Amino acid sequence: MFRSINFNAGPAALPQEVILKAQEELFDYHGTGMSIMEMSHRSKEFHAVHVHAQSMLREIMDIPDTHEVLFMQGGASHQFAMVPMNFLHPGQTAHYILTGTWAEKALQEAASLGSVDVLASTKETGYRSVPAELSKKPLHSAYTHITSNNTIYGTQWQSFPEVEDRLIADMSSDIMSRKIDVSKFSLIYAGAQKNLGPSGVTVVIADKDFLGTAQREQPKILQYKTFSDSNSLYNTPPTFSIYMLALVLEWTLERGGIHAIEKANNEKAQLLYHEIDSSEGFYEGHAEKGSRSQMNVTFRLPSEDLTAEFLKGAAAEGMVGLPGHRSVGGCRASIYNAVPITHCEALAEYMEKFRKKN
Amino acid sequence: MFRSINFNAGPAALPQEVILKAQEELFDYHGTGMSIMEMSHRSKEFHAVHVHAQSMLREIMDIPDTHEVLFMQGGASHQFAMVPMNFLHPGQTAHYILTGTWAEKALQEAASLGSVDVLASTKETGYRSVPAELSKKPLHSAYTHITSNNTIYGTQWQSFPEVEDRLIADMSSDIMSRKIDVSKFSLIYAGAQKNLGPSGVTVVIADKDFLGTAQREQPKILQYKTFSDSNSLYNTPPTFSIYMLALVLEWTLERGGIHAIEKANNEKAQLLYHEIDSSEGFYEGHAEKGSRSQMNVTFRLPSEDLTAEFLKGAAAEGMVGLPGHRSVGGCRASIYNAVPITHCEALAEYMEKFRKKN
Repeated sequence: MFRSINFNAGPAALPQEVILKAQEELFDYHGTGMSIMEMSHRSKEFHAVHVHAQSMLREIMDIPDTHEVLFMQGGASHQFAMVPMNFLHPGQTAHYILTGTWAEKALQEAASLGSVDVLASTKETGYRSVPAELSKKPLHSAYTHITSNNTIYGTQWQSFPEVEDRLIADMSSDIMSRKIDVSKFSLIYAGAQKNLGPSGVTVVIADKDFLGTAQREQPKILQYKTFSDSNSLYNTPPTFSIYMLALVLEWTLERGGIHAIEKANNEKAQLLYHEIDSSEGFYEGHAEKGSRSQMNVTFRLPSEDLTAEFLKGAAAEGMVGLPGHRSVGGCRASIYNAVPITHCEALAEYMEKFRKKN
Repeated sequence: MFRSINFNAGPAALPQEVILKAQEELFDYHGTGMSIMEMSHRSKEFHAVHVHAQSMLREIMDIPDTHEVLFMQGGASHQFAMVPMNFLHPGQTAHYILTGTWAEKALQEAASLGSVDVLASTKETGYRSVPAELSKKPLHSAYTHITSNNTIYGTQWQSFPEVEDRLIADMSSDIMSRKIDVSKFSLIYAGAQKNLGPSGVTVVIADKDFLGTAQREQPKILQYKTFSDSNSLYNTPPTFSIYMLALVLEWTLERGGIHAIEKANNEKAQLLYHEIDSSEGFYEGHAEKGSRSQMNVTFRLPSEDLTAEFLKGAAAEGMVGLPGHRSVGGCRASIYNAVPITHCEALAEYMEKFRKKN
């Protein structure tokens, strides 16, 4: 069956095996005579999926017992509001590090709720890098917020900033792509639609003690405590999205877990960066070398015309999702966990062929 | 293939044809070489699904041009908070009519945000009915909030209360089940997982002028305006849930639209209520006759032992989802749009058979 070479930025490619399995059991889940979508979120079948997803994520990301795994809705954009609503207390300031559009949006939501300060920003240089160092020390800080990978610009923190206060990260576009030390974070959140599954579910990993410091004046549905107290079953969760997340996590474990995933991601990104670096300026990477993302490879061609021709030729070879984000232009290959190395090889070969022809 | 007789209260039965279609095109959506889950929410393929779902819902529910159709996340519980955050202005009072647990939860969220008043309640009589009349007239009212169908108790407004202020309805468990006059409502919301599709998407139908009166101090993601201004594409929507919603709406139109659905729902409910009424007290309906729900039929048997035996026998015949909610006990058959009349016939026959045996 025809399969696109899918470089979409998100919602993005899912593992082929996962979609085939979902397809196989869509009509009759495990002999129940129902689709998983048709079952109560309190049924034993769905409950098993729900807790299995949590335990697999714990295993893969080596999440310590100090941290909880929550499933929520609304994507990262919803977290942009919930984080300050819960953790930006009166008299405190929340600190944000700006590395792209999504970080700006997170800042804006917090600014509508309380005192905020920008700890560092690379906006003036077109977000081509993450900050090398922090310009100031946070005082009376509620937390420091970062975006671990910047989908639009193709930059990524290679190591996380050392801050003295609570570190919160939007990891929507690189969660579970590499080994990280979860214990360094008070809260991590990620919309699922890059590395974890389809859109519609948001994964939150949070330090239990930190959750205990949250404000309690919010409506219940906007308190992390509500999700934590109910094991994310306070109201009906997005059951099918959580089921798909579970299938992706199973696939991740079958592939060998985080080490195998990280190794493959390194190799995949290296294929494309190597082609950029050996192109003698034909392909110009948007990100500075020290900030390059393993997830989103952004690059430009010498002219708009060549870019258009490049994209047209790529489409003819079955490659989709390569146009860059409108705010950066050029091209972007999003090569999340589910993108096989053969797809990156195909793109690298096409890039080389196209360069030699032009 | 084995198919359960599914009376789940939600997530609930979906039309068999819908699941089969979703299954068929899950791996390769319309020859794109991708699943619909793997596509950008800004792709032309998904965009077509998104706007088609909106226009089909408009057609089926006869939604006037004065009203918008929004797709959100978080279920009705999220709307419990968003409604007062947007529409309960300082100096005003929001009025709630209590007809069950979900109405109480909606009230509680509003109470955490501003001034609220209970306009009527049937709590003292075990929520066996909806109020016959309103005990007071709302003054300085932001809006009046009702729950159109009470899933747990099996009651439903037969006609909507005449209020002078803006009427807001949680229609999660009976939206699109019968012809209603949408123009009478300032805002309608519904989690999809009863009549519209799988969980994960919330449908909001709102008067544009009413949306214009919303408060603007909230975080952007908690303002209806944000969804309205972006045609519900401000951030990544739950694309697969919206796709499933579109399939359910197509199925609804193929069946003949709202009139055919309403007629079938009447017949389905009548089968079960007839068995209750002709059982000479063996089956006792929880809801008063004038408030009976066409969606959730709640009833009790003479004893706990008989209830357990009844449920066991039903399960043996492939019927699932019949135990009543823990707060009411007994049995509940949820017979949403997708439940075929043959399933109600099977249940009515089983009820008769069981009664005659005992």
